[in-house]
Amino acid sequence: MTKAAAAEQVVTARLRSGRTWQEIADTVGAPVVWTTAALLGNHPMSAEQASSACKLLGLGDDVAEALRLQPYRVRDEAVLSDPTIYRFTEALSVYGPALKELIHEEFGDGIMSAINFQVDIARRPHPDGDRVVVTFDGKFLDYRW
Amino acid sequence: MTKAAAAEQVVTARLRSGRTWQEIADTVGAPVVWTTAALLGNHPMSAEQASSACKLLGLGDDVAEALRLQPYRVRDEAVLSDPTIYRFTEALSVYGPALKELIHEEFGDGIMSAINFQVDIARRPHPDGDRVVVTFDGKFLDYRW
Amino acid sequence: MTKAAAAEQVVTARLRSGRTWQEIADTVGAPVVWTTAALLGNHPMSAEQASSACKLLGLGDDVAEALRLQPYRVRDEAVLSDPTIYRFTEALSVYGPALKELIHEEFGDGIMSAINFQVDIARRPHPDGDRVVVTFDGKFLDYRW
Amino acid sequence: MTKAAAAEQVVTARLRSGRTWQEIADTVGAPVVWTTAALLGNHPMSAEQASSACKLLGLGDDVAEALRLQPYRVRDEAVLSDPTIYRFTEALSVYGPALKELIHEEFGDGIMSAINFQVDIARRPHPDGDRVVVTFDGKFLDYRW
Amino acid sequence: MTKAAAAEQVVTARLRSGRTWQEIADTVGAPVVWTTAALLGNHPMSAEQASSACKLLGLGDDVAEALRLQPYRVRDEAVLSDPTIYRFTEALSVYGPALKELIHEEFGDGIMSAINFQVDIARRPHPDGDRVVVTFDGKFLDYRW
Amino acid sequence: MTKAAAAEQVVTARLRSGRTWQEIADTVGAPVVWTTAALLGNHPMSAEQASSACKLLGLGDDVAEALRLQPYRVRDEAVLSDPTIYRFTEALSVYGPALKELIHEEFGDGIMSAINFQVDIARRPHPDGDRVVVTFDGKFLDYRW
Amino acid sequence: MTKAAAAEQVVTARLRSGRTWQEIADTVGAPVVWTTAALLGNHPMSAEQASSACKLLGLGDDVAEALRLQPYRVRDEAVLSDPTIYRFTEALSVYGPALKELIHEEFGDGIMSAINFQVDIARRPHPDGDRVVVTFDGKFLDYRW
Amino acid sequence: MTKAAAAEQVVTARLRSGRTWQEIADTVGAPVVWTTAALLGNHPMSAEQASSACKLLGLGDDVAEALRLQPYRVRDEAVLSDPTIYRFTEALSVYGPALKELIHEEFGDGIMSAINFQVDIARRPHPDGDRVVVTFDGKFLDYRW
Amino acid sequence: MTKAAAAEQVVTARLRSGRTWQEIADTVGAPVVWTTAALLGNHPMSAEQASSACKLLGLGDDVAEALRLQPYRVRDEAVLSDPTIYRFTEALSVYGPALKELIHEEFGDGIMSAINFQVDIARRPHPDGDRVVVTFDGKFLDYRW
Amino acid sequence: MTKAAAAEQVVTARLRSGRTWQEIADTVGAPVVWTTAALLGNHPMSAEQASSACKLLGLGDDVAEALRLQPYRVRDEAVLSDPTIYRFTEALSVYGPALKELIHEEFGDGIMSAINFQVDIARRPHPDGDRVVVTFDGKFLDYRW
Repeated sequence: MTKAAAAEQVVTARLRSGRTWQEIADTVGAPVVWTTAALLGNHPMSAEQASSACKLLGLGDDVAEALRLQPYRVRDEAVLSDPTIYRFTEALSVYGPALKELIHEEFGDGIMSAINFQVDIARRPHPDGDRVVVTFDGKFLDYRW
Repeated sequence: MTKAAAAEQVVTARLRSGRTWQEIADTVGAPVVWTTAALLGNHPMSAEQASSACKLLGLGDDVAEALRLQPYRVRDEAVLSDPTIYRFTEALSVYGPALKELIHEEFGDGIMSAINFQVDIARRPHPDGDRVVVTFDGKFLDYRW
Repeated sequence: MTKAAAAEQVVTARLRSGRTWQEIADTVGAPVVWTTAALLGNHPMSAEQASSACKLLGLGDDVAEALRLQPYRVRDEAVLSDPTIYRFTEALSVYGPALKELIHEEFGDGIMSAINFQVDIARRPHPDGDRVVVTFDGKFLDYRW
Repeated sequence: MTKAAAAEQVVTARLRSGRTWQEIADTVGAPVVWTTAALLGNHPMSAEQASSACKLLGLGDDVAEALRLQPYRVRDEAVLSDPTIYRFTEALSVYGPALKELIHEEFGDGIMSAINFQVDIARRPHPDGDRVVVTFDGKFLDYRW
Repeated sequence: MTKAAAAEQVVTARLRSGRTWQEIADTVGAPVVWTTAALLGNHPMSAEQASSACKLLGLGDDVAEALRLQPYRVRDEAVLSDPTIYRFTEALSVYGPALKELIHEEFGDGIMSAINFQVDIARRPHPDGDRVVVTFDGKFLDYRW
Repeated sequence: MTKAAAAEQVVTARLRSGRTWQEIADTVGAPVVWTTAALLGNHPMSAEQASSACKLLGLGDDVAEALRLQPYRVRDEAVLSDPTIYRFTEALSVYGPALKELIHEEFGDGIMSAINFQVDIARRPHPDGDRVVVTFDGKFLDYRW
Repeated sequence: MTKAAAAEQVVTARLRSGRTWQEIADTVGAPVVWTTAALLGNHPMSAEQASSACKLLGLGDDVAEALRLQPYRVRDEAVLSDPTIYRFTEALSVYGPALKELIHEEFGDGIMSAINFQVDIARRPHPDGDRVVVTFDGKFLDYRW
Repeated sequence: MTKAAAAEQVVTARLRSGRTWQEIADTVGAPVVWTTAALLGNHPMSAEQASSACKLLGLGDDVAEALRLQPYRVRDEAVLSDPTIYRFTEALSVYGPALKELIHEEFGDGIMSAINFQVDIARRPHPDGDRVVVTFDGKFLDYRW
Repeated sequence: MTKAAAAEQVVTARLRSGRTWQEIADTVGAPVVWTTAALLGNHPMSAEQASSACKLLGLGDDVAEALRLQPYRVRDEAVLSDPTIYRFTEALSVYGPALKELIHEEFGDGIMSAINFQVDIARRPHPDGDRVVVTFDGKFLDYRW
Repeated sequence: MTKAAAAEQVVTARLRSGRTWQEIADTVGAPVVWTTAALLGNHPMSAEQASSACKLLGLGDDVAEALRLQPYRVRDEAVLSDPTIYRFTEALSVYGPALKELIHEEFGDGIMSAINFQVDIARRPHPDGDRVVVTFDGKFLDYRW
C-alpha cells in the first residue's frame, strides 16, 4: 500500500470515527501538526506510532506499514492551489522578499531551516472575527563554508 | 519610474547609508515587515510615508512617487526559488495539507485571510543555535454564501 | 469513494433521471450554483444535504459519504480550457486590470473575497439573442495590518 | 510608442492629475470599464476617444496614436496572479464547472460570448462590510454548424 | 463509461467493421467532420444519433449513453503535438498574426467565432501531388459592448 | 534592425498612411496573406519586394534590410493567446482529432504540409451575420521511407 | 489494447525470445529503424506486418490489432529526457541554428521533411572507441505558395 | 559585447558581404558546421579564428573578443520551435525510442556522445526532389562505473 | 511487471527483511550506490545480479525479469523536489556556474561525463555534527570534432 | 549596477588580464569555488574581498559595491541546461533516489545541508583520460521537531 492510499484511509476513518486530530495526536504521543502531517504521508512514523494510530482508527496492518515508509515529500502544484493552502503562498509573494531582507539583517547571510523546524497553529480570538495564527519556527543556518 | 526600479534604489541607498530596516520603519511610522515589503514594491505608501522614507535615504521625488503607486503583487518563481524564501514554500509542501485539516477542524470550511493579515519575524535564542520565528496571523474567513 | 468518482455518478444519474439542477437544489434546500458546485465536488455537504440529494438521484451511501468530505479545490488547467469556462478567463485577461483599477479607486487597496462570496447566473432576454448574465458578489477586503 | 508604454503614462498622469476613471470615461463618452480597459491597452480607441483622453490627462500625440493601435490581448500569468485579479480565477476553479452545467441546462450546448460582452462593477452596501459586485453579461452562442 | 473510453471503442469497432467515417455520418445524418468529432468525444450527440451510430458499429448502450454526455473540450498538448495536427498549429504561428490583421481590416475589431462555426475537408487534385484543403468558416463577432 | 522592430515600424506606418494590406500586397506583387506575414516578420522578402514595400510606406533602408533577413518562425504562446488567433487553436482542440482521422482515411498515413502550403481568407455574406472563411491548403505528404 | 500496452508486450517478448530487432525486421520485411519504431507504437503496421511480427514473438491477435492502429505520435518530455535520446536534443541546441543557416544557404527557405524521411544507424569503428553514426535523410521542402 | 550581439552582427555582415558560410569556414580553417555554430555563439573560437573571421566580414575587435568567450549552450524552446529546426525534434519523438533500442542492442547500455561528436550536412540529389542529409556521429560511451 | 512496480516491491521487501542496501550490494557483488540505483530502476541488472538480489529479498522471478529490462532514465520534477534530493539541485544553482568556469579553466571546453561516471557517499564525522560527503567522479570529455 | 552586470565585467576582465580563478581566490583569501561563485553573483562579498578582487582585475568601485550586495540565488533553467552543468542534474535523475535511500539508512530521516556546505573540484589523473572529481560536503540535518 502506498502512503497516498494510506492517507485516504486515514481521512475516511477519521470522518467515520469522529476523532479529532488532537485526539489522534495524543494517542500517538506527538505534536498535532507533526502527527497530522505524518498521517497524511509527509513524515515516516515509528512502528509504535503507526500501530497506535491505526488501532485508534480501526485500520489494518497494511496501513500501519505504509505509515512507516520513508516519504517522498514532493511539491504538488495542485495541492498548493487549494485556497486554504494557497493563501500562505500568496503571502510569500507579498512578504517573502521582506522576510529575506530582515533575516539577512538580523542573522546574516543564511536561511531559516525547514528541517530543524516546527510549525504550530492556534486560534486567536478577535472582536472583528477570530484569527488563524501559524508560527514557523526554524533554526537559523548561515552560509558557512 | 517603476516600483521595481525604485526598490533597487532603496536597497542600494540603504546599503550606503547603513540604516536598518527598523530605523526606516520607525521613520515611516509603520511595522517593519510592512515597511520593508512596501519599499520593495509590494504595498502602496501614502505620500507622507514615501516622502519620509526617501528623505531618510536621500532619494528623489521620482522614487517617492513610484512608492505611492498601486502595485501588481505578482507570483515570481525566480524570487520564490531563492533558498531563504524557498524554505517557506518547502514547509508548505510538507505541512500545508496538515494546516488545511487543522484549520477546517478548528474553524470549519474556510481560509486564513492573506489580506486581513499581518506577519512578524523574531529571533528566538536557543542553545543549539538561535531560531527564526515567523508568525502568520490572518483573519479566518469561512465559505459563506 | 473519491469526490471525483462521486461527481461522475451524480452527472450520470442526473442524465438518467431527467432532474434539473434546480430541482436538486430545491430538494437540498440551497442555492442552485452552490448545490451544483458541491455535487461536482467543490464544497462539502452536510449529512442531510448529501443524503437528500442521493435519495433524489437514487445514489448510494458511499456517494453521500464522499459528498461530505472536505474538498481540495484545485486549479485544473484542462478544466479551465473548456470553451464554456475559458471565456470567463479570457474576459479576465481583457478586463482584469481594469477591474483592479476600479476596485482600488472605489474601495482602496484590497480585493473582492472569493470566500465570503456568492455567484448567480441568469438568462437575460435580448432581441439579438438571449444573454448569459453571471454575477460575482464578494465582500471587499482591504489590506489591513 | 507601444500600448504598454502608453498605459504606464496614463496611470502616472492619472495619479498626478487626481482624475478618476469615471471622469475620464465621461470625457471619452464611453462606459467606465471599457474606457479603463482601453486606456490600459486592451481595446483600440477611436481617434476622437484617444485624443480627448490625452487632452484631459495632458499626454502627447504619441500616446494618443498608441491608444488607437489594435491590441494583442494576451494572457499574462503574472498579471493574473495579482491577488485582486486572482480571486476571480480562483472563483472559476470553484464555480466554473457548475456555471458550465447551468449554462448547458438553460441554454443548451454553447458558451457565453466574451466578445459580444460587457462587464460592470458596483459597490453593494452591506452591514457586514460593503461588497464588490461584478456582472459578466455576454450573448449566448450555441454550437451551431 | 467516460467519453474517452467510448471513443476508443468507436475507433476499434470502426477498424473491425471497415466502415468509413462518411458511412457513419450518413447513418447519423450529420456532416462528416461534426460526426467524427462527436464520436471522438468533442460534441454531445442526441439519443437518436448515438443510437444509430452504435447500432451500425455493433456497440452497446453504455457507449451510446456516453456519446450523449456533455463533453469537456480540453486543450491537450499531447494531442496537439501529433504531426498531422501540429502542422495546423505551426501554420498559425506563421500566419496567425497576418490573419488577425486581415480580419481586423476587413471586419473591424473582433474574431471569427469557433462556436458558430463549421469546418470542412476536401482533396484537391494537383499534378505535383494532391492537396488537403481545410476550410474554417465561422461567424464574425465584433467587440460590441 | 531586428525583424520584430521592422514589423512595428510597418504597422505604425501603415496606420499613418492609411494603406490597406491589399494595396501593399499589390505593390509588392504577392498574395495578401503572404505579404502581410512577410511584413510582420514571418517570411523573408526579396530585395525588390522589401524595397517596394518600404517605398510605399515611407520606411528606410534599414527596415528593408531587416525584411530580407531569414526569419525564426517561433511559437509564441502570448501571440497565440490573443482571442482572434486563439479561436483557431480552440477549433483544433475540438476538430483536430477528427481532421486527423479524415486525412488518414482519405489520403493514408501522413500530413498536410505547412510548407508547401497556402492560406486564404474571405468574407462570406450571411443573413445572420457575415462569416470569416479561412482556407488552409497544403500538399499531402505521406510517411514514406 | 492500446499501442502502448502492445509495445510493452513486444519489448518483454523480445527479451524472452532473444530475437534481435534486425531479425524481427527481416521477418517483417522492412528497414530495422522503421520496424522498431512501428513495434514501439510510432507507425501503423499492415495486417501482414503485424501478423508476422507477432507470430515470431509469440504474441496474440490483440497485439497484432493494436499494431495496425493509426498512432498518435506525441511529444513526451519524459521520453526525451532519457540520456540516450537527450544527447540528440542537446546536439540540436548546439548545432540547430547552424544547420538552419546551412540548409537555407544550400537549398533556400524551407525545411528537411520529417515525413518523407528515413533514418539509419550504424557503428563506425574507431581506434579511440567505436562511434554511433545516425543519418537523418529527408526531402527538402521549400516554402512555396 | 555578448555572444548573442556578436552573432547578430555576423549574420548581418554576412548578408551584406555576400560571403557563404563555407568561405568563412575556409578562412577560419575549420569545418563549416563547427564554424557556423561558433559564429552563432555556440563554440568558443581561438583568437586566430575569431580574428580571421572578423577580418573577412569587416567586423571589429569587440566582436572578435566576444567570439572567444566560453559560451552557455542553453536550451531555448523558441529556437527549437522554428520549423526548420523543429523537424529534427519531431523526428526524435517518432524515432528516438527506436534509436535507443538499437544503440543498446548494438553497443550495450550507454549513449552516443554529443561532446566527442561531429555533425555534417549534405545535399543528396533525388529525382523526386533533392534531399537534406544530416549525419550525427558521436563516440559511444557505455555506462561504466 | 514494470521497473517502477519492481522498485516498490524491493523497497517494501527490504523494510520487512531488515536488510541494508550494503548487504544487498554485497550479495549482488556491485558498488552500493550502483546497486541501489539499479534496484530502484535506473540501471539494468544482469540475470545473475537480479536473481541474487531477488533471492535475498524473497522476491519472485517477475521482479527479477523487470530488473533486467533496459530503463528509461527520465527526469521527474516531483522526485527532484523531495528535500533530500532538492538540496543537490539547489547547490547546482549556487555553484553550477562556478564549477563550469573551473572545469573550463582546468580542462578546457568540455564536460564531466555522467556516463563514464561513478558516485560515492560517505559519512564524515565532525564535532558540529556529522557530514554527508558525496563525490561525483566522471571522465572529462572535451568538445572534440 | 546589478550583480549580473558585475559578473559580466568580471568574466571579461579576467579574460583580458589572463588571471586564473585560483589567483583571484588567493588574492581574495577565500576558497576558489566560493570565490568564483561570489564573483559570478551567488555570494555576497565583504568590502575587503570585493575591493581586492576589483583591484586585481582593474574594475571600478561600482563593481565592488555590486559584489557586496546580498544576492537572489535563483533557479535558472537556461543556466542549468548548459551541458557542463546539465550533466550534474542528469546524474541526480539517475542517482538521486539512491542517494536519498543511503542518506536515510546511514543518518536517518533528513538531508545534506546546502547551506552549511562546501564543494570542491579536483582533477584525478587516469590512464583512460583524466577525471573531474567534485565533492559535495554538507552537514547532515535531521527532521527534528
